[in-house]
Amino acid sequence: MNTIGRLFRTSIFGESHGNVIGMLIDGCPAGIKISENEFTVDLDRRKSGANGTTARKEADVPLVKSGLFKGKTTGAPICIMFENKNVDSAQYERLKDTPRPGHADMVAMQKFCGSNDYRGGGHFSGRLTAPLVAAGVVAKKIITPIKIEAKLIEIHGSKNEDGMEKEINNAIRDGESVGGIIECRVNGLPVGLGEPFFDSFESLLSHAIFSIPGIKGIEFGAGFGCAEMLGSEFNDEILTANGKTKTNNAGGINGGITNGNELVFRVAIRPTASISKEQKTINLKTGKQTGIKIEGRHDACIALRTPVIVEAVTAIVLADLKMLNDIALIERVRK
Amino acid sequence: MNTIGRLFRTSIFGESHGNVIGMLIDGCPAGIKISENEFTVDLDRRKSGANGTTARKEADVPLVKSGLFKGKTTGAPICIMFENKNVDSAQYERLKDTPRPGHADMVAMQKFCGSNDYRGGGHFSGRLTAPLVAAGVVAKKIITPIKIEAKLIEIHGSKNEDGMEKEINNAIRDGESVGGIIECRVNGLPVGLGEPFFDSFESLLSHAIFSIPGIKGIEFGAGFGCAEMLGSEFNDEILTANGKTKTNNAGGINGGITNGNELVFRVAIRPTASISKEQKTINLKTGKQTGIKIEGRHDACIALRTPVIVEAVTAIVLADLKMLNDIALIERVRK
Amino acid sequence: MNTIGRLFRTSIFGESHGNVIGMLIDGCPAGIKISENEFTVDLDRRKSGANGTTARKEADVPLVKSGLFKGKTTGAPICIMFENKNVDSAQYERLKDTPRPGHADMVAMQKFCGSNDYRGGGHFSGRLTAPLVAAGVVAKKIITPIKIEAKLIEIHGSKNEDGMEKEINNAIRDGESVGGIIECRVNGLPVGLGEPFFDSFESLLSHAIFSIPGIKGIEFGAGFGCAEMLGSEFNDEILTANGKTKTNNAGGINGGITNGNELVFRVAIRPTASISKEQKTINLKTGKQTGIKIEGRHDACIALRTPVIVEAVTAIVLADLKMLNDIALIERVRK
Amino acid sequence: MNTIGRLFRTSIFGESHGNVIGMLIDGCPAGIKISENEFTVDLDRRKSGANGTTARKEADVPLVKSGLFKGKTTGAPICIMFENKNVDSAQYERLKDTPRPGHADMVAMQKFCGSNDYRGGGHFSGRLTAPLVAAGVVAKKIITPIKIEAKLIEIHGSKNEDGMEKEINNAIRDGESVGGIIECRVNGLPVGLGEPFFDSFESLLSHAIFSIPGIKGIEFGAGFGCAEMLGSEFNDEILTANGKTKTNNAGGINGGITNGNELVFRVAIRPTASISKEQKTINLKTGKQTGIKIEGRHDACIALRTPVIVEAVTAIVLADLKMLNDIALIERVRK
Repeated sequence: MNTIGRLFRTSIFGESHGNVIGMLIDGCPAGIKISENEFTVDLDRRKSGANGTTARKEADVPLVKSGLFKGKTTGAPICIMFENKNVDSAQYERLKDTPRPGHADMVAMQKFCGSNDYRGGGHFSGRLTAPLVAAGVVAKKIITPIKIEAKLIEIHGSKNEDGMEKEINNAIRDGESVGGIIECRVNGLPVGLGEPFFDSFESLLSHAIFSIPGIKGIEFGAGFGCAEMLGSEFNDEILTANGKTKTNNAGGINGGITNGNELVFRVAIRPTASISKEQKTINLKTGKQTGIKIEGRHDACIALRTPVIVEAVTAIVLADLKMLNDIALIERVRK
Repeated sequence: MNTIGRLFRTSIFGESHGNVIGMLIDGCPAGIKISENEFTVDLDRRKSGANGTTARKEADVPLVKSGLFKGKTTGAPICIMFENKNVDSAQYERLKDTPRPGHADMVAMQKFCGSNDYRGGGHFSGRLTAPLVAAGVVAKKIITPIKIEAKLIEIHGSKNEDGMEKEINNAIRDGESVGGIIECRVNGLPVGLGEPFFDSFESLLSHAIFSIPGIKGIEFGAGFGCAEMLGSEFNDEILTANGKTKTNNAGGINGGITNGNELVFRVAIRPTASISKEQKTINLKTGKQTGIKIEGRHDACIALRTPVIVEAVTAIVLADLKMLNDIALIERVRK
Repeated sequence: MNTIGRLFRTSIFGESHGNVIGMLIDGCPAGIKISENEFTVDLDRRKSGANGTTARKEADVPLVKSGLFKGKTTGAPICIMFENKNVDSAQYERLKDTPRPGHADMVAMQKFCGSNDYRGGGHFSGRLTAPLVAAGVVAKKIITPIKIEAKLIEIHGSKNEDGMEKEINNAIRDGESVGGIIECRVNGLPVGLGEPFFDSFESLLSHAIFSIPGIKGIEFGAGFGCAEMLGSEFNDEILTANGKTKTNNAGGINGGITNGNELVFRVAIRPTASISKEQKTINLKTGKQTGIKIEGRHDACIALRTPVIVEAVTAIVLADLKMLNDIALIERVRK
Repeated sequence: MNTIGRLFRTSIFGESHGNVIGMLIDGCPAGIKISENEFTVDLDRRKSGANGTTARKEADVPLVKSGLFKGKTTGAPICIMFENKNVDSAQYERLKDTPRPGHADMVAMQKFCGSNDYRGGGHFSGRLTAPLVAAGVVAKKIITPIKIEAKLIEIHGSKNEDGMEKEINNAIRDGESVGGIIECRVNGLPVGLGEPFFDSFESLLSHAIFSIPGIKGIEFGAGFGCAEMLGSEFNDEILTANGKTKTNNAGGINGGITNGNELVFRVAIRPTASISKEQKTINLKTGKQTGIKIEGRHDACIALRTPVIVEAVTAIVLADLKMLNDIALIERVRK
């Protein structure tokens, strides 16, 4: 299912080398002011161009095809598209029979019986995160004044700026790629987002986060560190009647529900799958192993472009949960 | 929403100190042989009794109230219930105004405006994992011969059996609790489970896993370790035409889709929230901080009882995905 | 899928001659006062006992197994069950190989490959409308002060009380059954329930209504009569700025959305499938046609017991839509 | 929610006078051959041009923006768009404050607080049935060789061709519009589509059918006529071991599940809301009643263009149910 959300519902479509990529947003409240240039800031943060990012340059101009009228959302579905222009598919015809290690080439071929669009990863391409970012911009409007901030805190083991820069340069030099860790903090959350069990806040957020290509892990608050803690260390002392805590090992969530403290989570991002260094794979025609070099345009570190995508996906989940919470609010008022 | 799954749908209900806890399973294929005593093995693995687990002993006899006829599933919804018998609610009336640190008491009260059943955590209780395990037993039948095995690989930093035992004994001695890490491995998976983007295998599995109380992180394959790897180290070399790889840093998943290799993931489990050691919290009536000791019956390490729950939840997700995959299969056959 | 609703979600389970029948309600707001005896009025309206209804008498005492605490809903799932006691399955073993005409026997056997519970129609039984009525009672609380009134306006062609009575008596005398038409009117609806296209008010309501066994048609406002009208006759003249109309051919809905006028719809209910008169069917063992007489206890006219079920199902849909509408409301307030 | 379906999921978007109208199809199996010109036959049947249909002529060229590669579906979402070109919005600025009787103008304004796109009915426009028809073309491919045939059987009370023609001519002459009845027959259905209760076949089909603008009623088999029948007349005698019946009052469905006989249902379509004859409405600015003449381009009888839409919507539901049924099939094979 290429859709997420119960009330604020986003559906992704398109392929890397196809006509367009896009997002259909259903359930957005009417009357929200939005202009196409408001998408620019976040789309620019996702864009390539910086050191360590791909040379494929797309204008990434969002075309709002429906759901907007006189500068405001209408309550009808919002279709946002990006045209694919800077496309070079030649290499992919060559690579067709030699699935790239670390990519979805092999599974896509098997799952879709060879009918998948294999050019540039097709529908699996990281390029589809542009529509994700666009949907995030709409979602951020809905959850104002909640503030989401994601940043890269580690690249290939280095945690300071100089070290990170060096790691990237080394990767570029060696035809390699490097992974990283992003930390996301959200402030201004109300108490009560999420449900016990299957729609716990962590359930819904991790569901969305793992839709971002390349993410291999997520942890909340103390995260994996909790395995080395005692109960008395981990439990957050409650300070006030509205639930503020002294520490924040819970990461802002108890029992699957936001507790009003800062939401903190981290995600691990794998090294870019495409590297120019030679790797081994199988040639599907001969059935024999063969060397492969991915010559196209690729990022040395996709983590560099991922923070704004993590923010977008978080905003999408929060928009949905905020609306669900509004129902509870109004029911309370009635009583 | 207390329901998970698109085709194999499980809905959880009940409270720790209420009448019953239970699970409603909808979408289970007809004709699956199952008897109430087949639930015993897994329920026993979840049960308390071992060193470091709670003294609250429930018979945990699953009562199948519907959907079973002549020893087989009928295709109609299966309602499985457990009666709560060994209930002692006295303490909870006392604790009502002093929310326990690390528990859902505070958020539940705020989210449900004080109407929540606060006895023993109510609907948030870990006791509801018994129905989860029961649903897992049904799910495991559907996904035969896929094999799921979860085990505890670390407690409070110790990774061997003696060390783990010692950590638990220390915790019991000190009125403390300890966290741990569980690793789950699944073998026999077909290629093709999961979808690109929002229903990636990791999305669906993490969604389900985070419904288990106390889980603070999940990672697949190399997991957070990927942040310290180079692309050439991380990418799994493809060995055969059906996708077997030399290493398994991907954990059995590419592009959100199972690749036929072993599925490997790990989860971090926080120390039990209830500890007898004094902690500080707020007294909601006086608005002042106060000391609190949780005297009830609690586990020193919930991670001890969690492996079978991780297996159950994994089975539930796999049952759903296997059915979805069957559709693709039959469509292929037709062509 | 045995579940309906996006926010107020009801899931039905159980079999006619099984252990229990029941309903799981998820998404009910916390804090709603409800006692088990409040179910009595509506359950009594559904009950058998009157002239023309079945002799199977069940106490129909609703057992609320979860989600209720200190007389109020807690926000957790509400499980309501009814025990089956007055069960006589002997006849059904005999009828097993001769599917009853007009019943689901044949399709159930084929769909579930013979694993279905065939006793008394199993999960297909009209007996499962008791949980529907119970869920309706909860839903009616949520939508207060909206008023739903369904009544029987026609039996076997007769539209007045004497005629209807006569039709029923004739049917009883002849071992026959008769159909009827129920009209439902809802007052106090806000403008704005329903969505354009797939979740039009008529879409959602008819979806729910056709889950009631035996319904063969539904029409809104002028209904099928619209096919004989001119545009100028059909269009409802708008009288006031809040949308009150002179006539109500639209039945209270425009473009799939409630317009604030009275909601009016009618449903057609087939004659009870079980009749004592001999009918012809196939003997599945011999492959030959054979005569069949349904000797059990059955209603001469199920339409007699259906109005309260139509109300319940309508209330369930309205509860869901009212909550969805509340979100829109609160968004408006914020602007 | 502008989406329908569990497995074959279609999402509609766009506005009458906006940039585009379109459909996003998710869950379509990979490998289905389809070309843009295969849409032509059905789109032509929906097109205006014939006597009694609107003068607004749109080329209605479907643009497949994603999900198609080398002439086959890829398994990724299929986005089909139609550009709006022949747009004349001038009149709608004039009509803005005088909601048209029988239209959604009034409810749209209230529901969306005045932010709705009011030009030509915006997202409520019958023009959005073009994407519905396109989705139907894809769905029909999936359900081959099932055959769906809908036809107009009554216009303004006339049931023969000459009479119907005359009714339309009269309506045109008088600046009026007329309603009609469409009958749809489906052959080749397998036994077993649909579920007991909430996903009964009638529930799912009526849900979809009522998303077509202008439909006021639906009935299956004997339909409303069942209210005048005896049980012995209504019940369909079973003739063979695979469930063929002598009569078909059930319309091909028992207990909410297809029984392998012909599916038969009828829908009532209201007279076109737009008529040139003067009508009364309210002027929202003055608060006073006023006369209104709808001068645009409109159909005298929308029912003329609706049969192919009824077929499309039926195909969409059947595609979804066929896939669901495939799961059951494969489970059977395994046993």
